[in-house]
Amino acid sequence: MATYLITGTSRGLGLALATHLASLPSSQISTIFTLARKSSPALETLIEKSDGRVILIEADVTDEASIKKAVGEVETKLAGKGLDVLINNVGMMGLTPDGIAAMDDLADHFTVNVLSAHWTIRNFIPLLEKGTQKKIINISTTLGSFGLASQYTWATAPAYKITKAALNMLTVQYANDYAEKGFTIVSLSPGWLQTDLGGGERADLAPEVGAKASLDRIFSATKEDNGQFLNIKVEGWENAAGPNKYNGLNPPW
Amino acid sequence: MATYLITGTSRGLGLALATHLASLPSSQISTIFTLARKSSPALETLIEKSDGRVILIEADVTDEASIKKAVGEVETKLAGKGLDVLINNVGMMGLTPDGIAAMDDLADHFTVNVLSAHWTIRNFIPLLEKGTQKKIINISTTLGSFGLASQYTWATAPAYKITKAALNMLTVQYANDYAEKGFTIVSLSPGWLQTDLGGGERADLAPEVGAKASLDRIFSATKEDNGQFLNIKVEGWENAAGPNKYNGLNPPW
Repeated sequence: MATYLITGTSRGLGLALATHLASLPSSQISTIFTLARKSSPALETLIEKSDGRVILIEADVTDEASIKKAVGEVETKLAGKGLDVLINNVGMMGLTPDGIAAMDDLADHFTVNVLSAHWTIRNFIPLLEKGTQKKIINISTTLGSFGLASQYTWATAPAYKITKAALNMLTVQYANDYAEKGFTIVSLSPGWLQTDLGGGERADLAPEVGAKASLDRIFSATKEDNGQFLNIKVEGWENAAGPNKYNGLNPPW
Repeated sequence: MATYLITGTSRGLGLALATHLASLPSSQISTIFTLARKSSPALETLIEKSDGRVILIEADVTDEASIKKAVGEVETKLAGKGLDVLINNVGMMGLTPDGIAAMDDLADHFTVNVLSAHWTIRNFIPLLEKGTQKKIINISTTLGSFGLASQYTWATAPAYKITKAALNMLTVQYANDYAEKGFTIVSLSPGWLQTDLGGGERADLAPEVGAKASLDRIFSATKEDNGQFLNIKVEGWENAAGPNKYNGLNPPW
């Protein structure tokens, strides 16, 4: 009977996460709040077929006032229940093929990839404190890993890498502050997905594969994982060449 | 006959770095450009005693137009020579004693601790390419280390930690992009210093001790260190209890 809130659900991984959750029995997943700036045909279809389990919350996570309004709407819908799991999925990845000195989108990336997560967490945390699972998942990436950076020099996405490293430290700081309250706050790398953000077909995994693997890892996460950088596990990808190994083992920070 | 530019020199570590450099023979250090929003009595005194070797450049590194103007001034003073070493020292550290959910200064920290470094580097890099040393030092901190985070839960400076982790990834990305041009681009932890930023007397080291140790490490840095997180070495602090060990060994990211 868990309740979820996912940000950035009009397409890509966010939509795939909501879709997979909605496919599970309502005895396991009762309500999925899908937060998006605006809906999309695919999200509308999901909502229509969901028997009221998937609920659209229109909000812009780069605007804290908009998040506060969303919290009020979610609180009303929960009718006294808590929120169990928050998945901060909103993100952007711009490319800078001419090298880092040409990077003009760093501030935008910081707002979308870091500030939005901070604002979402701090405004939803009172509802999460009332929940039974107290899980916060920040969707991150191994592109933000220091330990793997030398293997990703081909990826011309410096603003993405820099702000995801910052997001990872945001995860660690929240995890430290909320450990005693029983929270499980983690970064999760969902794999390189064939989404608009991921760059389409040259990526490794279909969005639904990444979504299922991500949710498998989210379901199995416990307080022991608090403050950790989690990885998905996908059969056949455990020992892939290069840095994208989906073996379920925590990547290096 | 090396030429240096240091940002944030009106006080604290920046002033101490400039002071130590000015104490060295002009055969070793020819010119020290001290970049500050505005001068200070202590900086003025240093400049007056320096026989023209310490030069004030008034600029605000949180404003890229101001940096571009500074580059023009430095270029004129260099009269065809290159800039050898750039030390991005500007930084801010705010405290959030009520916990990370109360953090309202994250965007400000990002501007001061990360964007300023990016803008300073990319605008000064043409002068650095003409220099003989091609060293860029981003003043960082072990508070931005993932590997040491569990030892710093007592430090209620989440915005500082998050943005210094981001600065460290900025270092890595610049280092990767400029390795082939012979650059040495590093993050350096200057120790916990008795400065206004550091929190005064309860810190470990006098600013001049941290400055000398930092410059010792900067002098010895070679292309082999490109993309690394450097640490200072201070006699008697090599095996100190806790995370602040000034043993000259690279801290974990």
